[in-house]
Amino acid sequence: MRIARYSYNDVPHYAFVQTDGADEKDYLVELDGYPFGSKPVGPTGERHAIDEDGVRLLAPVIPSKVYGLAKNYEAHAEFMHAKGRSAVEHAPSEMVIFMKPSTSVIGPDDPIVIPECSDDMNFEPEVAVVISRIARNVPVEKAMDYVLGFTCVNDVTLRDLQGTDPMWTRAKGFDTSCPLGPWIETDLNWQDAKISFTLNGEDVPEASGTTANLIHSIPEQIAAISSFATLLPGDVILTGTPNASGSLNPRDEAVVTVEGIGPLRNVVVKAQ
Amino acid sequence: MRIARYSYNDVPHYAFVQTDGADEKDYLVELDGYPFGSKPVGPTGERHAIDEDGVRLLAPVIPSKVYGLAKNYEAHAEFMHAKGRSAVEHAPSEMVIFMKPSTSVIGPDDPIVIPECSDDMNFEPEVAVVISRIARNVPVEKAMDYVLGFTCVNDVTLRDLQGTDPMWTRAKGFDTSCPLGPWIETDLNWQDAKISFTLNGEDVPEASGTTANLIHSIPEQIAAISSFATLLPGDVILTGTPNASGSLNPRDEAVVTVEGIGPLRNVVVKAQ
Repeated sequence: MRIARYSYNDVPHYAFVQTDGADEKDYLVELDGYPFGSKPVGPTGERHAIDEDGVRLLAPVIPSKVYGLAKNYEAHAEFMHAKGRSAVEHAPSEMVIFMKPSTSVIGPDDPIVIPECSDDMNFEPEVAVVISRIARNVPVEKAMDYVLGFTCVNDVTLRDLQGTDPMWTRAKGFDTSCPLGPWIETDLNWQDAKISFTLNGEDVPEASGTTANLIHSIPEQIAAISSFATLLPGDVILTGTPNASGSLNPRDEAVVTVEGIGPLRNVVVKAQ
Repeated sequence: MRIARYSYNDVPHYAFVQTDGADEKDYLVELDGYPFGSKPVGPTGERHAIDEDGVRLLAPVIPSKVYGLAKNYEAHAEFMHAKGRSAVEHAPSEMVIFMKPSTSVIGPDDPIVIPECSDDMNFEPEVAVVISRIARNVPVEKAMDYVLGFTCVNDVTLRDLQGTDPMWTRAKGFDTSCPLGPWIETDLNWQDAKISFTLNGEDVPEASGTTANLIHSIPEQIAAISSFATLLPGDVILTGTPNASGSLNPRDEAVVTVEGIGPLRNVVVKAQ
Protein backbone atom coordinates (compact mmCIF):
# COMPACT_ATOMS: atom_id res chain seq x y z
CA MET A 1 0.00 0.00 0.00
CA ARG A 2 1.20 3.50 -0.83
CA ILE A 3 0.43 6.41 1.53
CA ALA A 4 0.98 9.96 0.28
CA ARG A 5 0.50 13.49 1.59
CA TYR A 6 -0.49 16.09 -0.94
CA SER A 7 -2.11 19.46 -1.28
CA TYR A 8 -5.00 20.22 -3.59
CA ASN A 9 -5.37 23.95 -4.19
CA ASP A 10 -3.03 24.42 -1.20
CA VAL A 11 -5.14 22.36 1.27
CA PRO A 12 -3.15 19.36 2.62
CA HIS A 13 -4.57 15.83 2.81
CA TYR A 14 -3.38 12.25 3.25
CA ALA A 15 -4.20 9.71 0.55
CA PHE A 16 -3.72 6.17 -0.62
CA VAL A 17 -2.05 6.04 -4.02
CA GLN A 18 -3.94 3.60 -6.26
CA THR A 19 -3.52 2.69 -9.89
CA ASP A 20 -6.79 2.70 -11.81
CA GLY A 21 -7.21 -0.44 -13.91
CA ALA A 22 -9.01 1.48 -16.64
CA ASP A 23 -6.38 4.09 -17.56
CA GLU A 24 -3.41 2.64 -15.58
CA LYS A 25 -2.85 6.08 -14.03
CA ASP A 26 -1.99 6.72 -10.37
CA TYR A 27 -4.74 8.37 -8.32
CA LEU A 28 -4.65 9.99 -4.89
CA VAL A 29 -7.59 8.55 -2.93
CA GLU A 30 -8.23 11.14 -0.22
CA LEU A 31 -8.33 9.89 3.39
CA ASP A 32 -10.55 11.17 6.20
CA GLY A 33 -7.75 11.32 8.74
CA TYR A 34 -4.18 10.82 9.78
CA PRO A 35 -2.76 7.36 8.95
CA PHE A 36 -0.73 7.13 12.20
CA GLY A 37 -2.03 5.97 15.53
CA SER A 38 -4.97 3.88 16.55
CA LYS A 39 -7.94 5.41 14.66
CA PRO A 40 -8.65 3.64 11.37
CA VAL A 41 -8.78 5.89 8.30
CA GLY A 42 -10.78 5.43 5.14
CA PRO A 43 -11.49 7.12 1.80
CA THR A 44 -13.60 10.29 1.76
CA GLY A 45 -14.82 9.56 -1.77
CA GLU A 46 -12.66 12.30 -3.34
CA ARG A 47 -9.81 11.36 -5.65
CA HIS A 48 -7.38 13.17 -7.93
CA ALA A 49 -5.09 12.04 -10.69
CA ILE A 50 -1.54 12.51 -9.40
CA ASP A 51 -0.76 14.83 -12.32
CA GLU A 52 -3.99 16.85 -12.05
CA ASP A 53 -3.72 20.67 -12.01
CA GLY A 54 -3.69 21.95 -8.43
CA VAL A 55 -2.28 18.69 -7.02
CA ARG A 56 1.14 18.77 -5.39
CA LEU A 57 2.82 15.91 -3.54
CA LEU A 58 4.25 16.90 -0.15
CA ALA A 59 6.79 15.13 2.05
CA PRO A 60 4.74 12.05 3.05
CA VAL A 61 5.20 12.75 6.75
CA ILE A 62 6.12 15.63 9.08
CA PRO A 63 8.45 13.90 11.51
CA SER A 64 8.99 15.26 15.02
CA LYS A 65 12.58 14.17 14.48
CA VAL A 66 14.78 12.39 11.96
CA TYR A 67 17.61 10.08 13.00
CA GLY A 68 20.27 8.95 10.56
CA LEU A 69 23.02 6.36 10.47
CA ALA A 70 26.48 7.31 9.19
CA LYS A 71 28.83 4.78 7.57
CA ASN A 72 26.36 1.95 7.73
CA TYR A 73 27.65 0.22 4.58
CA GLU A 74 31.25 -0.98 4.23
CA ALA A 75 31.38 0.25 0.60
CA HIS A 76 30.50 3.80 1.71
CA ALA A 77 33.13 3.73 4.49
CA GLU A 78 35.74 2.61 1.95
CA PHE A 79 34.64 5.32 -0.51
CA MET A 80 34.97 8.02 2.18
CA HIS A 81 38.44 6.76 3.09
CA ALA A 82 39.55 6.61 -0.57
CA LYS A 83 38.38 10.22 -1.04
CA GLY A 84 40.47 11.32 1.93
CA ARG A 85 37.37 12.27 3.91
CA SER A 86 37.90 9.69 6.61
CA ALA A 87 41.11 8.63 8.37
CA VAL A 88 39.82 5.10 8.88
CA GLU A 89 39.43 2.50 6.17
CA HIS A 90 36.49 0.59 7.61
CA ALA A 91 33.12 1.40 9.08
CA PRO A 92 33.08 1.71 12.88
CA SER A 93 31.69 -1.30 14.73
CA GLU A 94 29.37 0.91 16.80
CA MET A 95 26.45 2.76 15.16
CA VAL A 96 27.10 6.45 14.45
CA ILE A 97 23.70 8.13 14.92
CA PHE A 98 23.01 11.75 13.99
CA MET A 99 19.88 13.93 13.89
CA LYS A 100 18.16 16.17 11.37
CA PRO A 101 15.45 18.57 12.55
CA SER A 102 11.87 18.63 11.22
CA THR A 103 12.68 21.93 9.46
CA SER A 104 15.18 20.13 7.20
CA VAL A 105 12.42 18.03 5.56
CA ILE A 106 11.20 18.89 2.04
CA GLY A 107 8.98 17.01 -0.38
CA PRO A 108 9.22 15.75 -3.94
CA ASP A 109 10.09 18.50 -6.45
CA ASP A 110 10.94 21.01 -3.69
CA PRO A 111 14.29 22.73 -4.30
CA ILE A 112 17.42 21.70 -2.36
CA VAL A 113 19.01 25.04 -1.43
CA ILE A 114 22.83 25.19 -1.07
CA PRO A 115 23.40 27.35 2.02
CA GLU A 116 25.87 30.22 1.83
CA CYS A 117 28.16 28.56 4.38
CA SER A 118 29.14 25.70 2.04
CA ASP A 119 30.90 25.08 -1.27
CA ASP A 120 30.65 21.29 -1.24
CA MET A 121 27.16 19.80 -1.09
CA ASN A 122 26.79 16.03 -1.63
CA PHE A 123 23.94 13.63 -2.39
CA GLU A 124 23.36 10.44 -0.36
CA PRO A 125 20.49 8.24 -1.63
CA GLU A 126 18.98 6.00 1.07
CA VAL A 127 15.99 4.02 2.31
CA ALA A 128 14.06 5.89 5.04
CA VAL A 129 11.97 4.07 7.64
CA VAL A 130 8.74 5.68 8.91
CA ILE A 131 7.68 4.79 12.48
CA SER A 132 4.00 3.95 13.07
CA ARG A 133 3.59 4.17 16.85
CA ILE A 134 5.35 5.17 20.06
CA ALA A 135 8.52 3.12 20.37
CA ARG A 136 10.62 2.92 23.55
CA ASN A 137 13.02 0.10 24.46
CA VAL A 138 11.85 -2.02 21.55
CA PRO A 139 13.67 -5.36 21.21
CA VAL A 140 15.20 -6.17 17.80
CA GLU A 141 12.80 -9.07 17.21
CA LYS A 142 9.72 -6.82 17.63
CA ALA A 143 11.12 -3.70 15.93
CA MET A 144 9.40 -4.18 12.57
CA ASP A 145 5.99 -4.04 14.36
CA TYR A 146 6.70 -0.31 14.86
CA VAL A 147 7.23 0.45 11.16
CA LEU A 148 4.50 2.01 9.03
CA GLY A 149 6.54 1.81 5.85
CA PHE A 150 9.45 3.07 3.83
CA THR A 151 10.25 5.97 1.55
CA CYS A 152 13.15 7.42 -0.43
CA VAL A 153 15.46 10.00 1.11
CA ASN A 154 18.37 12.07 -0.08
CA ASP A 155 20.52 12.62 3.04
CA VAL A 156 22.00 15.83 1.61
CA THR A 157 25.31 16.65 3.34
CA LEU A 158 27.66 19.64 3.34
CA ARG A 159 30.89 17.67 3.04
CA ASP A 160 33.16 20.65 3.79
CA LEU A 161 31.40 21.49 7.06
CA GLN A 162 31.13 17.81 7.98
CA GLY A 163 34.92 17.80 7.98
CA THR A 164 35.40 20.98 10.01
CA ASP A 165 32.44 21.19 12.44
CA PRO A 166 32.72 18.85 15.47
CA MET A 167 28.94 18.20 15.29
CA TRP A 168 27.00 17.77 12.01
CA THR A 169 24.26 20.20 13.05
CA ARG A 170 24.95 22.43 10.03
CA ALA A 171 26.37 19.76 7.70
CA LYS A 172 23.30 17.50 7.86
CA GLY A 173 20.64 19.69 9.48
CA PHE A 174 20.38 22.79 7.28
CA ASP A 175 17.01 23.73 5.77
CA THR A 176 16.15 21.48 2.75
CA SER A 177 18.77 18.84 3.70
CA CYS A 178 16.17 16.06 3.99
CA PRO A 179 14.14 15.49 0.78
CA LEU A 180 11.63 12.71 1.53
CA GLY A 181 9.11 10.93 -0.65
CA PRO A 182 7.31 10.63 -2.92
CA TRP A 183 5.13 8.40 -0.70
CA ILE A 184 5.33 5.74 2.02
CA GLU A 185 5.31 2.15 0.75
CA THR A 186 4.10 -0.29 3.41
CA ASP A 187 5.21 -3.37 1.48
CA LEU A 188 8.93 -3.51 0.81
CA ASN A 189 11.44 -6.31 0.76
CA TRP A 190 13.41 -4.28 3.29
CA GLN A 191 16.06 -6.96 3.69
CA ASP A 192 17.13 -6.55 0.06
CA ALA A 193 15.79 -3.23 -1.26
CA LYS A 194 17.74 -1.83 -4.21
CA ILE A 195 18.70 1.86 -4.04
CA SER A 196 19.62 3.80 -7.18
CA PHE A 197 20.45 7.39 -8.06
CA THR A 198 20.44 9.47 -11.20
CA LEU A 199 22.05 12.90 -11.64
CA ASN A 200 20.69 15.04 -14.48
CA GLY A 201 19.02 11.99 -16.01
CA GLU A 202 22.14 9.79 -15.96
CA ASP A 203 22.45 6.73 -13.79
CA VAL A 204 25.20 6.94 -11.14
CA PRO A 205 25.90 3.21 -10.64
CA GLU A 206 28.64 3.78 -8.03
CA ALA A 207 26.00 5.37 -5.72
CA SER A 208 23.67 2.37 -5.88
CA GLY A 209 23.35 -0.58 -3.52
CA THR A 210 20.99 -2.76 -1.55
CA THR A 211 19.91 -2.90 2.08
CA ALA A 212 21.17 -6.51 2.02
CA ASN A 213 24.59 -4.92 2.68
CA LEU A 214 23.58 -2.83 5.69
CA ILE A 215 26.01 -3.28 8.59
CA HIS A 216 23.37 -2.48 11.24
CA SER A 217 20.00 -3.79 10.06
CA ILE A 218 16.76 -1.80 10.19
CA PRO A 219 15.43 -3.66 13.27
CA GLU A 220 18.80 -3.14 15.00
CA GLN A 221 18.61 0.60 14.27
CA ILE A 222 15.09 0.89 15.74
CA ALA A 223 16.12 -1.09 18.82
CA ALA A 224 19.26 1.01 19.36
CA ILE A 225 17.59 4.40 18.96
CA SER A 226 14.54 3.46 21.03
CA SER A 227 16.88 2.35 23.85
CA PHE A 228 17.69 6.01 24.63
CA ALA A 229 14.94 8.09 22.96
CA THR A 230 11.21 7.73 22.42
CA LEU A 231 10.31 7.40 18.74
CA LEU A 232 6.96 8.99 17.87
CA PRO A 233 4.51 8.11 15.07
CA GLY A 234 5.89 9.68 11.88
CA ASP A 235 9.49 9.82 13.08
CA VAL A 236 11.96 8.83 10.40
CA ILE A 237 15.24 6.88 10.38
CA LEU A 238 17.69 7.32 7.49
CA THR A 239 19.34 3.93 7.21
CA GLY A 240 22.62 4.94 5.50
CA THR A 241 23.89 5.51 1.97
CA PRO A 242 25.17 2.34 0.32
CA ASN A 243 28.27 3.45 -1.57
CA ALA A 244 29.72 6.54 -3.29
CA SER A 245 28.27 10.01 -2.92
CA GLY A 246 29.05 13.04 -5.08
CA SER A 247 28.62 16.75 -5.66
CA LEU A 248 25.36 18.62 -6.09
CA ASN A 249 25.60 21.93 -7.90
CA PRO A 250 23.07 24.59 -8.91
CA ARG A 251 20.51 23.34 -11.49
CA ASP A 252 21.40 19.67 -10.87
CA GLU A 253 18.45 17.29 -10.87
CA ALA A 254 18.89 14.62 -8.16
CA VAL A 255 16.66 11.54 -8.30
CA VAL A 256 16.57 8.80 -5.64
CA THR A 257 14.74 5.54 -6.30
CA VAL A 258 14.25 2.60 -3.99
CA GLU A 259 13.03 -0.50 -5.86
CA GLY A 260 9.23 -0.16 -5.81
CA ILE A 261 9.23 3.40 -4.36
CA GLY A 262 9.86 6.63 -6.16
CA PRO A 263 11.30 8.42 -7.91
CA LEU A 264 12.09 11.24 -5.46
CA ARG A 265 13.18 14.15 -7.65
CA ASN A 266 14.64 17.47 -6.45
CA VAL A 267 16.49 20.28 -8.22
CA VAL A 268 19.40 22.14 -6.62
CA VAL A 269 19.45 25.93 -6.34
CA LYS A 270 21.89 28.39 -4.79
CA ALA A 271 20.73 30.43 -1.75
CA GLN A 272 19.50 33.88 -2.85
CA MET B 1 6.12 38.99 32.60
CA ARG B 2 6.15 35.28 33.45
CA ILE B 3 4.52 32.76 31.07
CA ALA B 4 3.92 29.21 32.29
CA ARG B 5 2.37 26.03 30.99
CA TYR B 6 0.57 23.86 33.49
CA SER B 7 -2.03 21.17 33.79
CA TYR B 8 -5.04 21.36 36.05
CA ASN B 9 -6.56 17.92 36.64
CA ASP B 10 -4.45 16.75 33.67
CA VAL B 11 -5.78 19.36 31.17
CA PRO B 12 -2.93 21.58 29.88
CA HIS B 13 -3.16 25.40 29.67
CA TYR B 14 -0.90 28.41 29.27
CA ALA B 15 -0.92 31.09 31.97
CA PHE B 16 0.62 34.30 33.16
CA VAL B 17 2.22 33.89 36.58
CA GLN B 18 1.14 36.81 38.78
CA THR B 19 1.79 37.53 42.42
CA ASP B 20 -1.34 38.56 44.30
CA GLY B 21 -0.77 41.67 46.41
CA ALA B 22 -3.15 40.40 49.12
CA ASP B 23 -1.48 37.10 50.04
CA GLU B 24 1.82 37.55 48.09
CA LYS B 25 1.31 34.10 46.56
CA ASP B 26 1.97 33.23 42.89
CA TYR B 27 -1.14 32.53 40.82
CA LEU B 28 -1.51 30.96 37.38
CA VAL B 29 -3.83 33.25 35.40
CA GLU B 30 -5.20 30.98 32.67
CA LEU B 31 -4.84 32.22 29.06
CA ASP B 32 -7.32 31.70 26.22
CA GLY B 33 -4.68 30.63 23.71
CA TYR B 34 -1.11 30.01 22.72
CA PRO B 35 1.30 32.85 23.59
CA PHE B 36 3.34 32.44 20.37
CA GLY B 37 2.50 33.92 17.03
CA SER B 38 0.42 36.86 15.98
CA LYS B 39 -2.92 36.33 17.80
CA PRO B 40 -3.08 38.22 21.09
CA VAL B 41 -3.95 36.14 24.15
CA GLY B 42 -5.76 37.19 27.29
CA PRO B 43 -7.00 35.84 30.61
CA THR B 44 -9.99 33.47 30.61
CA GLY B 45 -10.99 34.56 34.12
CA GLU B 46 -9.81 31.29 35.71
CA ARG B 47 -6.85 31.28 38.07
CA HIS B 48 -5.15 28.81 40.38
CA ALA B 49 -2.64 29.16 43.17
CA ILE B 50 0.59 27.60 41.93
CA ASP B 51 0.56 25.15 44.84
CA GLU B 52 -3.14 24.24 44.51
CA ASP B 53 -4.07 20.54 44.48
CA GLY B 54 -4.39 19.28 40.90
CA VAL B 55 -2.03 21.97 39.51
CA ARG B 56 1.23 20.80 37.95
CA LEU B 57 3.74 23.00 36.13
CA LEU B 58 4.83 21.60 32.76
CA ALA B 59 7.83 22.49 30.60
CA PRO B 60 6.86 26.05 29.59
CA VAL B 61 7.10 25.24 25.89
CA ILE B 62 7.08 22.20 23.56
CA PRO B 63 9.89 23.11 21.17
CA SER B 64 10.03 21.64 17.67
CA LYS B 65 13.76 21.55 18.26
CA VAL B 66 16.38 22.55 20.82
CA TYR B 67 19.81 23.85 19.82
CA GLY B 68 22.66 24.09 22.29
CA LEU B 69 26.09 25.68 22.41
CA ALA B 70 29.05 23.68 23.73
CA LYS B 71 32.05 25.34 25.39
CA ASN B 72 30.63 28.81 25.19
CA TYR B 73 32.35 30.04 28.37
CA GLU B 74 36.12 30.04 28.76
CA ALA B 75 35.82 28.85 32.39
CA HIS B 76 33.88 25.76 31.27
CA ALA B 77 36.42 24.97 28.52
CA GLU B 78 39.24 25.22 31.09
CA PHE B 79 37.31 23.01 33.52
CA MET B 80 36.78 20.34 30.84
CA HIS B 81 40.50 20.43 29.98
CA ALA B 82 41.55 20.25 33.64
CA LYS B 83 39.29 17.20 34.10
CA GLY B 84 40.97 15.46 31.15
CA ARG B 85 37.73 15.53 29.12
CA SER B 86 39.09 17.80 26.45
CA ALA B 87 42.48 17.79 24.72
CA VAL B 88 42.38 21.54 24.17
CA GLU B 89 42.81 24.13 26.89
CA HIS B 90 40.65 26.89 25.44
CA ALA B 91 37.20 27.18 23.92
CA PRO B 92 37.12 26.87 20.12
CA SER B 93 36.79 30.18 18.25
CA GLU B 94 33.89 28.82 16.15
CA MET B 95 30.54 27.99 17.77
CA VAL B 96 29.97 24.29 18.47
CA ILE B 97 26.23 23.77 17.96
CA PHE B 98 24.41 20.55 18.88
CA MET B 99 20.75 19.47 18.93
CA LYS B 100 18.38 17.88 21.43
CA PRO B 101 15.06 16.47 20.21
CA SER B 102 11.64 17.55 21.50
CA THR B 103 11.34 14.17 23.25
CA SER B 104 14.25 15.08 25.56
CA VAL B 105 12.29 17.95 27.17
CA ILE B 106 10.81 17.52 30.66
CA GLY B 107 9.27 20.02 33.05
CA PRO B 108 9.85 21.14 36.64
CA ASP B 109 9.78 18.25 39.15
CA ASP B 110 9.82 15.61 36.39
CA PRO B 111 12.46 12.92 37.05
CA ILE B 112 15.77 12.90 35.15
CA VAL B 113 16.24 9.24 34.22
CA ILE B 114 19.81 7.89 33.90
CA PRO B 115 19.69 5.64 30.83
CA GLU B 116 21.13 2.15 31.04
CA CYS B 117 23.86 3.00 28.52
CA SER B 118 25.66 5.42 30.87
CA ASP B 119 27.48 5.44 34.21
CA ASP B 120 28.46 9.11 34.19
CA MET B 121 25.64 11.64 33.98
CA ASN B 122 26.47 15.34 34.53
CA PHE B 123 24.51 18.51 35.26
CA GLU B 124 24.99 21.71 33.23
CA PRO B 125 22.95 24.71 34.49
CA GLU B 126 22.25 27.30 31.76
CA VAL B 127 20.07 30.12 30.49
CA ALA B 128 17.68 28.95 27.73
CA VAL B 129 16.30 31.33 25.10
CA VAL B 130 12.74 30.81 23.79
CA ILE B 131 12.05 32.00 20.21
CA SER B 132 8.84 33.95 19.59
CA ARG B 133 8.42 33.86 15.80
CA ILE B 134 9.80 32.37 12.61
CA ALA B 135 13.47 33.31 12.34
CA ARG B 136 15.56 32.81 9.19
CA ASN B 137 18.74 34.71 8.32
CA VAL B 138 18.26 37.12 11.21
CA PRO B 139 21.04 39.71 11.58
CA VAL B 140 22.72 40.01 15.00
CA GLU B 141 21.34 43.51 15.57
CA LYS B 142 17.72 42.35 15.12
CA ALA B 143 18.05 38.95 16.83
CA MET B 144 16.51 39.96 20.16
CA ASP B 145 13.27 40.90 18.33
CA TYR B 146 12.75 37.14 17.84
CA VAL B 147 12.98 36.25 21.53
CA LEU B 148 9.86 35.64 23.63
CA GLY B 149 11.82 35.20 26.84
CA PHE B 150 14.15 33.07 28.89
CA THR B 151 13.98 30.08 31.17
CA CYS B 152 16.26 27.80 33.19
CA VAL B 153 17.64 24.62 31.68
CA ASN B 154 19.74 21.74 32.90
CA ASP B 155 21.65 20.53 29.81
CA VAL B 156 22.01 17.02 31.24
CA THR B 157 24.91 15.20 29.55
CA LEU B 158 26.21 11.62 29.58
CA ARG B 159 29.89 12.46 29.92
CA ASP B 160 31.10 8.92 29.19
CA LEU B 161 29.20 8.67 25.90
CA GLN B 162 30.11 12.25 24.98
CA GLY B 163 33.73 11.06 25.01
CA THR B 164 33.19 7.89 22.99
CA ASP B 165 30.35 8.62 20.53
CA PRO B 166 31.37 10.74 17.51
CA MET B 167 28.01 12.55 17.66
CA TRP B 168 26.27 13.58 20.90
CA THR B 169 22.91 12.13 19.83
CA ARG B 170 22.82 9.81 22.84
CA ALA B 171 24.99 11.89 25.20
CA LYS B 172 22.80 15.01 25.01
CA GLY B 173 19.60 13.78 23.35
CA PHE B 174 18.34 10.92 25.52
CA ASP B 175 14.83 11.10 27.00
CA THR B 176 14.70 13.52 30.00
CA SER B 177 18.03 15.19 29.10
CA CYS B 178 16.44 18.64 28.78
CA PRO B 179 14.66 19.82 31.97
CA LEU B 180 13.17 23.27 31.18
CA GLY B 181 11.31 25.76 33.33
CA PRO B 182 9.67 26.60 35.60
CA TRP B 183 8.34 29.39 33.34
CA ILE B 184 9.39 31.85 30.64
CA GLU B 185 10.48 35.27 31.93
CA THR B 186 10.15 37.94 29.24
CA ASP B 187 12.15 40.54 31.19
CA LEU B 188 15.72 39.49 31.91
CA ASN B 189 18.98 41.35 31.99
CA TRP B 190 20.25 38.80 29.48
CA GLN B 191 23.61 40.50 29.13
CA ASP B 192 24.45 39.79 32.77
CA ALA B 193 22.12 37.07 34.07
CA LYS B 194 23.49 35.14 37.04
CA ILE B 195 23.23 31.33 36.87
CA SER B 196 23.45 29.21 40.02
CA PHE B 197 23.09 25.55 40.90
CA THR B 198 22.38 23.56 44.04
CA LEU B 199 22.81 19.82 44.50
CA ASN B 200 20.83 18.23 47.32
CA GLY B 201 20.20 21.63 48.81
CA GLU B 202 23.85 22.74 48.83
CA ASP B 203 25.13 25.55 46.66
CA VAL B 204 27.71 24.48 44.04
CA PRO B 205 29.56 27.78 43.55
CA GLU B 206 32.01 26.39 40.97
CA ALA B 207 29.04 25.70 38.63
CA SER B 208 27.77 29.28 38.78
CA GLY B 209 28.42 32.17 36.41
CA THR B 210 26.89 34.98 34.42
CA THR B 211 25.95 35.45 30.77
CA ALA B 212 28.29 38.47 30.86
CA ASN B 213 31.04 35.89 30.26
CA LEU B 214 29.45 34.22 27.21
CA ILE B 215 31.94 33.87 24.34
CA HIS B 216 29.22 33.94 21.65
CA SER B 217 26.42 36.26 22.81
CA ILE B 218 22.71 35.38 22.64
CA PRO B 219 22.07 37.55 19.54
CA GLU B 220 25.14 36.00 17.85
CA GLN B 221 23.77 32.52 18.56
CA ILE B 222 20.36 33.34 17.06
CA ALA B 223 21.99 34.89 13.99
CA ALA B 224 24.32 31.91 13.49
CA ILE B 225 21.65 29.22 13.86
CA SER B 226 19.09 31.07 11.75
CA SER B 227 21.68 31.38 8.96
CA PHE B 228 21.32 27.66 8.18
CA ALA B 229 18.02 26.56 9.82
CA THR B 230 14.59 28.08 10.32
CA LEU B 231 13.80 28.68 13.99
CA LEU B 232 10.10 28.22 14.80
CA PRO B 233 8.03 29.82 17.58
CA GLY B 234 8.81 27.93 20.77
CA ASP B 235 12.19 26.66 19.63
CA VAL B 236 14.81 26.82 22.35
CA ILE B 237 18.53 27.63 22.42
CA LEU B 238 20.69 26.45 25.34
CA THR B 239 23.32 29.15 25.64
CA GLY B 240 26.09 27.15 27.38
CA THR B 241 27.08 26.21 30.91
CA PRO B 242 29.26 28.81 32.61
CA ASN B 243 31.83 26.80 34.51
CA ALA B 244 32.20 23.40 36.25
CA SER B 245 29.73 20.57 35.85
CA GLY B 246 29.51 17.46 38.01
CA SER B 247 27.92 14.09 38.60
CA LEU B 248 24.23 13.33 38.98
CA ASN B 249 23.39 10.12 40.79
CA PRO B 250 20.13 8.40 41.75
CA ARG B 251 18.07 10.39 44.29
CA ASP B 252 20.08 13.59 43.70
CA GLU B 253 18.03 16.78 43.67
CA ALA B 254 19.34 19.16 40.96
CA VAL B 255 18.19 22.80 41.09
CA VAL B 256 19.01 25.42 38.44
CA THR B 257 18.27 29.09 39.09
CA VAL B 258 18.77 32.03 36.76
CA GLU B 259 18.58 35.34 38.63
CA GLY B 260 14.86 36.23 38.52
CA ILE B 261 13.76 32.85 37.08
CA GLY B 262 13.31 29.58 38.86
CA PRO B 263 14.09 27.45 40.64
CA LEU B 264 13.98 24.52 38.20
CA ARG B 265 14.06 21.41 40.38
CA ASN B 266 14.42 17.81 39.21
CA VAL B 267 15.26 14.57 40.99
CA VAL B 268 17.45 11.87 39.43
CA VAL B 269 16.32 8.27 39.12
CA LYS B 270 17.85 5.16 37.59
CA ALA B 271 16.16 3.59 34.55
CA GLN B 272 13.92 0.69 35.63
